[in-house]
Amino acid sequence: MSARLNTREDYQKLLDAYDTWLFDCDGVLWRGDHLIDGVTEVLDILRRLNKKIVFVTNNATKSRKTYKQKFDQLGISIHVDEIYGSAYAAAVYLSTVVKIPKDKKVYVIGQSGLEEELRDEGLTYIGGTDPADNTLAQFDLSNFVLDPDVAAVVCGLDTQINYTKLSKAFQYLTRNPGCLFIATNEDSTYPTWHGLLPGAGAVSAPLRYALGKDPICTGKPSTTMLDCVKAKVHFDPSRTIMVGDRLNTDILFGQQGGLATLLVLTGITSEDEIIGPNASAIIPNFFTQGLGDFRVIDKSP
Amino acid sequence: MSARLNTREDYQKLLDAYDTWLFDCDGVLWRGDHLIDGVTEVLDILRRLNKKIVFVTNNATKSRKTYKQKFDQLGISIHVDEIYGSAYAAAVYLSTVVKIPKDKKVYVIGQSGLEEELRDEGLTYIGGTDPADNTLAQFDLSNFVLDPDVAAVVCGLDTQINYTKLSKAFQYLTRNPGCLFIATNEDSTYPTWHGLLPGAGAVSAPLRYALGKDPICTGKPSTTMLDCVKAKVHFDPSRTIMVGDRLNTDILFGQQGGLATLLVLTGITSEDEIIGPNASAIIPNFFTQGLGDFRVIDKSP
Repeated sequence: MSARLNTREDYQKLLDAYDTWLFDCDGVLWRGDHLIDGVTEVLDILRRLNKKIVFVTNNATKSRKTYKQKFDQLGISIHVDEIYGSAYAAAVYLSTVVKIPKDKKVYVIGQSGLEEELRDEGLTYIGGTDPADNTLAQFDLSNFVLDPDVAAVVCGLDTQINYTKLSKAFQYLTRNPGCLFIATNEDSTYPTWHGLLPGAGAVSAPLRYALGKDPICTGKPSTTMLDCVKAKVHFDPSRTIMVGDRLNTDILFGQQGGLATLLVLTGITSEDEIIGPNASAIIPNFFTQGLGDFRVIDKSP
Repeated sequence: MSARLNTREDYQKLLDAYDTWLFDCDGVLWRGDHLIDGVTEVLDILRRLNKKIVFVTNNATKSRKTYKQKFDQLGISIHVDEIYGSAYAAAVYLSTVVKIPKDKKVYVIGQSGLEEELRDEGLTYIGGTDPADNTLAQFDLSNFVLDPDVAAVVCGLDTQINYTKLSKAFQYLTRNPGCLFIATNEDSTYPTWHGLLPGAGAVSAPLRYALGKDPICTGKPSTTMLDCVKAKVHFDPSRTIMVGDRLNTDILFGQQGGLATLLVLTGITSEDEIIGPNASAIIPNFFTQGLGDFRVIDKSP
């Protein structure tokens, strides 16, 4: 049963109960290029109350540095170290968990942000934004030279997805023994101001289907992402809350990490998905219309 | 339990038992551009014995007319009416089963062969080989004009697959009420002489994943394909055999249609997939190394 936040007291209770606030971005802070009403004021309230703030995003097309520019443009003041992205999580997973040898390479289906995070973790990659792979020219397998050093394929949202990239990735995953199949995230759709588009999960779906095998996912709801946050930020899970707009990524992520969860209705999920006969199996502890609702704290009682 | 054909008598028994012979093509008659040993001789034997011959292919990139050229090039003499393709089956399904109104359109993810079959069935289509949709330019949803007349999305193998096509198809499938999601076939991979590439099932996989919904499939193993053959060819299922190289398409197709099944090992499937502890659940009635084995019939006993 999910509790709807209503009164000033409801919001105050949450602020008292949780010291660390993890936020999803798209659908919570903004939608496309539009800031959601009241967001900057509420983040100011949290800062004033000395809350630890972390932004956890599945967006893998931008590096954390580039992603910060989005906050800047919308007038949200944050520090780059407060951002944790699924591309960063994929890079950290490869460099520190798998520890792939320095002479090995990653084949990238993804955009410059993913490349930047891999580079920052000291990993060598091919594919990605390489013009040779961003083509609709016919892919000719007889001319393809398999690079035996490719030890992983990392797949994120890539709006330049094409048959050459898919075919090369498929060769590495089927012909290089032990080659890892990693997806930054598995979001089925990607919200824009004008509507939904196919998400990163849809971009890795052809490989998943052709291989008959699921990738290792480093974004929400995977705990790999939370492990990345934990490695840098100290927090008490019992006093931490995850705020998001998606049940199967954000809310599940919080639940699997033992955190409290708050759903906002400014993104993907509508109220009838958490209340009533057709409710999802993944239910947040709390829900409210939008993050801006917390502004009630500053109104005279 | 699958019976291995061994002796001259084994092959003769099959020829006596079945009057109609359905053949898959890729992996049975040829592999890529290479004719498989003995194929023309065996087809000649079948013709001499007055067998009815039907070619049932999931290849949806070529129309039947264009597909016949492949037989011609390899020196296999056939009639175009003997060919049944999954693109043809998709077109027939829309025109005669669904009966989509004449003022409605089909959005195509696929190549010219699929377009040709749709056109031959009197259907109007957009997308497909249209240069506007064969692009890696950024797709801008705010500039996209939804055509309310699109009543179906048909998806076949498309080596020009890209984010614009996927995004447009996704808009039609989510925003045009009742818009049908049809896949010509669901083959996970596509065999070439130099190895496997992602198949038509991999091309529709992003939509399947983004929608959380499976398409209606008109190719093998779907019975829609057999309904197409039945509409034109009269045969007794108990005296008909399906010959193929794939368990989950060809052999399953034969089984679901109540036909006998013969697996050849010149394509996707290896012997250990039908015999022994790791055998598949889909087992053919008979198997042999290759179609050419039937040449034993013409050798003196």
